[in-house]
Amino acid sequence: MPETPDFTLVCPIPIADYPNVMMAHGGGGTLMRQLIEKMFLRAFGTTDAGAQHDSAIIEPAGTGKIAFTTDSYVVSPLFFPGGDIGSMAVYGTVNDLAMAGARARYLSAGFILEEGLPMETLWRVVRSMGEAARRTSVRIVTGDTKVVDRGKGDGVFINTAGIGVVESPAEISPRSVRVGDAILLSGDLGRHGIAVIASREGIEFETAIESDLAPLGDVVMALLAGGIAVRCLRDLTRGGLASALNEIAESAGVGIEIEESKVPVRDDVRGACELLGFDPLYVANEGRFVAFVEQADAERALEIVRFHACGANAEIAGRVSESGAGRATLKTRIGTNRPLDMLSGEQLPRIC
Amino acid sequence: MPETPDFTLVCPIPIADYPNVMMAHGGGGTLMRQLIEKMFLRAFGTTDAGAQHDSAIIEPAGTGKIAFTTDSYVVSPLFFPGGDIGSMAVYGTVNDLAMAGARARYLSAGFILEEGLPMETLWRVVRSMGEAARRTSVRIVTGDTKVVDRGKGDGVFINTAGIGVVESPAEISPRSVRVGDAILLSGDLGRHGIAVIASREGIEFETAIESDLAPLGDVVMALLAGGIAVRCLRDLTRGGLASALNEIAESAGVGIEIEESKVPVRDDVRGACELLGFDPLYVANEGRFVAFVEQADAERALEIVRFHACGANAEIAGRVSESGAGRATLKTRIGTNRPLDMLSGEQLPRIC
Repeated sequence: MPETPDFTLVCPIPIADYPNVMMAHGGGGTLMRQLIEKMFLRAFGTTDAGAQHDSAIIEPAGTGKIAFTTDSYVVSPLFFPGGDIGSMAVYGTVNDLAMAGARARYLSAGFILEEGLPMETLWRVVRSMGEAARRTSVRIVTGDTKVVDRGKGDGVFINTAGIGVVESPAEISPRSVRVGDAILLSGDLGRHGIAVIASREGIEFETAIESDLAPLGDVVMALLAGGIAVRCLRDLTRGGLASALNEIAESAGVGIEIEESKVPVRDDVRGACELLGFDPLYVANEGRFVAFVEQADAERALEIVRFHACGANAEIAGRVSESGAGRATLKTRIGTNRPLDMLSGEQLPRIC
Repeated sequence: MPETPDFTLVCPIPIADYPNVMMAHGGGGTLMRQLIEKMFLRAFGTTDAGAQHDSAIIEPAGTGKIAFTTDSYVVSPLFFPGGDIGSMAVYGTVNDLAMAGARARYLSAGFILEEGLPMETLWRVVRSMGEAARRTSVRIVTGDTKVVDRGKGDGVFINTAGIGVVESPAEISPRSVRVGDAILLSGDLGRHGIAVIASREGIEFETAIESDLAPLGDVVMALLAGGIAVRCLRDLTRGGLASALNEIAESAGVGIEIEESKVPVRDDVRGACELLGFDPLYVANEGRFVAFVEQADAERALEIVRFHACGANAEIAGRVSESGAGRATLKTRIGTNRPLDMLSGEQLPRIC
């Protein structure tokens, strides 16, 4: 477990002297060291000496199988209702590990800062990362800081890579999906994308739409601990539910059928989507996933997921079928079948 | 071992249709998939299905001790004499693992692309990464692609995180350094920084100065296999030799003495440094390191290092002393002692 991070609200780099990030903060000299020691290590509660050397030495226990993943985060704006780039950089990577049935243990953090970034802004981001790491019991053990000239970046980009210990005895992947499996959807769709775009464009809705950003490690570990036969997991980020199901259908060579009536979308989110011309099935989420589970375990899996706050609105939303192999289909409320094709790109750029 | 990558010179994405990277290439849809499947996986020789899912599953064998590191690469220009951002993103991270006594096994690759980047440029970079990975026998097993709007990035930034298996029985770190240890310097200094800055600023010298960029895994593994008592290793990147020795002296609480006459700097590099106002002791290298070894092993270590092309000009350049604890000192050719202080930043921004 990491040391308790220091969450004082006061930026540990003296703002009077260094109001903004300078090129020298990425130069490998005393200013970079100050940034690492006073700000990063402190917020992350990292005490390992290795964090200041070229590599961290770790000893992940467990079965010997390790999950390894990476994501860069370029979300704009940096802060949005329900989250920020810092918490996202931790939860996003923790979630990718969870989707492989792995418990996240170690993260790396690579920062690309734009010259002129207010030091206070960086502190808020870094503090948020530290809080998110503490909440998910992951240790940020190694990192890197680069600074690019003004106009060659956009405030801050963060890359995290994550190492997790695989807790699932069986392989969790599209390859394991079988005809007849139930498809559990963990909650309502579309909030993250709408929250970010509304925040970026200065659009206000009648109700506050907050991102669904949440760590998914606990709920996945609970499914595994409960003995649920989990076949495949996928979080519903870029491209949303439709793209995720499409990819799985294609990789697994099976058909996927989803009931529109079992896909929760909040009224305000649906309204915002209509207003902005988006389809909630393709909008990115940051705390939602689908679980393909053996049919016999479906109801028990639903109970387990609903027990967690991030899965309170979970539904058994569909099933794996023999027909329509390679394709995902939505059974609409009026009884028609709508193919869920892949889009060429994301409707909403820079939402993660 | 990775599959033999496909190094055809023809860009696998049809340039006529997609001459430049578009926002949609980072959107999680069909265009991103095309980029990943046709370009990245092909150049990297990655066949693991996991590379297309949320996490890669790996089983690093060995002692159970794993080294984990990360670096983001923002070098400008993307191509410079002796290397490019792609080869650097592989070798740099492989080298950080080597400095922990670890053999690099797996890499992640996170791309932040700027909208409008020529597809051909991306292909050259990615191909170079693939070649570098093959040369160092590392597998690029997981990745991520983001695209930022024009003017919010700078062509391409790459983050790699690396996992290596620790091969050294003893801890390799400043903590292990002892008074009396010999300090081996693996070669001449200053070429990388000068090559990049000259290329960026369009400066031409009489002789071609190429970066010293090189993978250091083999030479480090040879030292360990040779039974050399290696105490500490450090590659001489940002901040150069002076900053590295300074940090080690401080961490280890020892004095470090270096002989100027044993620090090789090529005449053309020295001339360029004088012209540009740089000190070669602080200029970044990408294929140079110092090894702190037990005094009794020094000559044998030197032989091993010189046997490798990247260490042909190695020297025993100094020793660890009791006096001057926490500081590094240069004994000049005229017999005076010059303290090697830390600079506040790098003299040359964006050289890695």
